[in-house]
Amino acid sequence: MPSEQVMKAAMQAYIDCFNRADPEAIAALYADDATVEDPVGSPLKSGKAEVAAFYKMAVATGAKLKLAAPIRASHGNSAAMAFDVQLNMPTGEAIIQVIDVMTFNEDGKFTSMRAFWGKSDMVLLKPPA
Amino acid sequence: MPSEQVMKAAMQAYIDCFNRADPEAIAALYADDATVEDPVGSPLKSGKAEVAAFYKMAVATGAKLKLAAPIRASHGNSAAMAFDVQLNMPTGEAIIQVIDVMTFNEDGKFTSMRAFWGKSDMVLLKPPA
Repeated sequence: MPSEQVMKAAMQAYIDCFNRADPEAIAALYADDATVEDPVGSPLKSGKAEVAAFYKMAVATGAKLKLAAPIRASHGNSAAMAFDVQLNMPTGEAIIQVIDVMTFNEDGKFTSMRAFWGKSDMVLLKPPA
Repeated sequence: MPSEQVMKAAMQAYIDCFNRADPEAIAALYADDATVEDPVGSPLKSGKAEVAAFYKMAVATGAKLKLAAPIRASHGNSAAMAFDVQLNMPTGEAIIQVIDVMTFNEDGKFTSMRAFWGKSDMVLLKPPA
């Protein structure tokens, strides 16, 4: 089981790789057989190819991630973090309030990611000028 | 599946019941066959009696819960929230930085709670006077 420090560093790397728009680096944080459920309640993306395609699309939106509170570890192989997805859309500036939960393998790679957010977590900050 | 609003209201009720030190009211938010894993990686408490006993003990510590960011829902039967557990211990004031994930049944009761926090999420704020 990876240490709390290893898990938290991987979560922080996820934020950092996303914010420098590097989908390959995000995909490299995942194990080959990892799954992504984003949002929770939607069909799983499964395996490195689907995960990489998902982040290529996500990063292309220009979205940026900002931690809302310090990253949490656990006494198991999981960690969690609350953050805001900052979006600059044709309809104005908006945020999506998200909590991601990751599980890890022995090598400190993500084996799963689940993103908790619903329609009520999308907040319009500023209408278009 | 309960609405996002119903799930978020139950999460907020959990915080409020905890802060008025009412373990029976917390237990009433749970389904009869619910499980609690707090922290993630520790043995499950299972069923209303074990869940009620856990909160009786937790509330007796005098701990208070403070949301660190708005409660998140999902597109499924789950919600999540980041909060700080505020503790006034003989060793000084401390917080535990936690993320709770709950699943829900059709009646809007918690069927499971998982609390993500590790040793590295315990922060000493002030040593004893």
